[in-house]
Amino acid sequence: MALKKINVMESVYKRNEKRAAEFNARLTDRRVYCVNVMGSPGAGKTTLLMALVKRLAKPVFIIEGDVASDIDARAFADAGVMAAQINTGSACHLNAEEVMQKFNDTAAGFTAGFLFIENIGNLICPADFLLGEHIRVLVCAVTDGGDKPYKYPMAFERAGAVLLNKIDLMNHVDFDENFFTAGLRQINNTAPVFNISGVTGEGLDAVADWLARVAGPILA
Amino acid sequence: MALKKINVMESVYKRNEKRAAEFNARLTDRRVYCVNVMGSPGAGKTTLLMALVKRLAKPVFIIEGDVASDIDARAFADAGVMAAQINTGSACHLNAEEVMQKFNDTAAGFTAGFLFIENIGNLICPADFLLGEHIRVLVCAVTDGGDKPYKYPMAFERAGAVLLNKIDLMNHVDFDENFFTAGLRQINNTAPVFNISGVTGEGLDAVADWLARVAGPILA
Repeated sequence: MALKKINVMESVYKRNEKRAAEFNARLTDRRVYCVNVMGSPGAGKTTLLMALVKRLAKPVFIIEGDVASDIDARAFADAGVMAAQINTGSACHLNAEEVMQKFNDTAAGFTAGFLFIENIGNLICPADFLLGEHIRVLVCAVTDGGDKPYKYPMAFERAGAVLLNKIDLMNHVDFDENFFTAGLRQINNTAPVFNISGVTGEGLDAVADWLARVAGPILA
Repeated sequence: MALKKINVMESVYKRNEKRAAEFNARLTDRRVYCVNVMGSPGAGKTTLLMALVKRLAKPVFIIEGDVASDIDARAFADAGVMAAQINTGSACHLNAEEVMQKFNDTAAGFTAGFLFIENIGNLICPADFLLGEHIRVLVCAVTDGGDKPYKYPMAFERAGAVLLNKIDLMNHVDFDENFFTAGLRQINNTAPVFNISGVTGEGLDAVADWLARVAGPILA
């Protein structure tokens, strides 16, 4: 039983990786830089993306992943940002196949810009599934406490950048930033950390500059 | 491939349900009332449990579930609360088999009290796995926003009570309580909602009273 399950999962991962590589190559060809945005439910992914996209000089397309509802895709559409929604029904992560399909269906002509994929709010399962991204960004909120890198190592290990969000609430919570950073650096010594607030916009210019820089070779 | 995966999952669920029913019967025999505590990462499950157990008139045993680290079990031990830690390695939820095993290994003589199982921080996968609990309690934080019942319906649908945590931060965040409650009531019309703060202790006497009442028939 256990072995059978593992075999099935390995074949799921392998198939997904193949699709992700295929999608990544297609995006690169079209000069689309793809960012896989992860974080726990309520980390503030949508709010910060809303504030971030205004600071980018290139076109943006957003693919929203949620178990249910199209609240976020509608919010982006209302704000004039191109967006499409994937509902996974009960699945706890997005996979490359459904993201590629959604992109093909809704963003056929999109080129020379940023594709943000807002993954399902979950610090565990999404870490195992490549979606064709050029980089992963992990969003954490100071309201969630400083112990997250110790408890959910995979998401932190594979992050290309960490956005420490809701710093406007820093004075109201008991967040141990040294403990957080030490935990992160045990498993990931390269990802830059940006202290930001999606609500006030603090720190987002620096994130936009960094994104423009890392995406430069693809977008050029 | 897809069908094979579904078959494997069905057999996983079925096996888990059998184990959960077995464990639940054993706990009931020993007059142990079991609470499965769910919530997203950083919802404040540990902090509120720490404050809640002091308000209960019966013995308490805690089983802590985390992907990695024993930070929470050590915190309870330091506070003089009996606790054991399960690390799932990479699994995104606890299952009945491992909880029963941990209880047998660490709480052999425990009787006539509360067993709290703090599940992995995740609003999706844990909802599908019974652990032998008599009731499920879902912890949400106002800092995470009011849209969670719409986006993660399973966890809310199956909750026996909802603890709306971090209300001490209510004035600092944009939490739409009516939107939250309307979403919850679309899928769960019976679970009581308690507005609480694990930090200040607000609302926890009411939760303790409620727990004593629902657990009464098992504990008596």
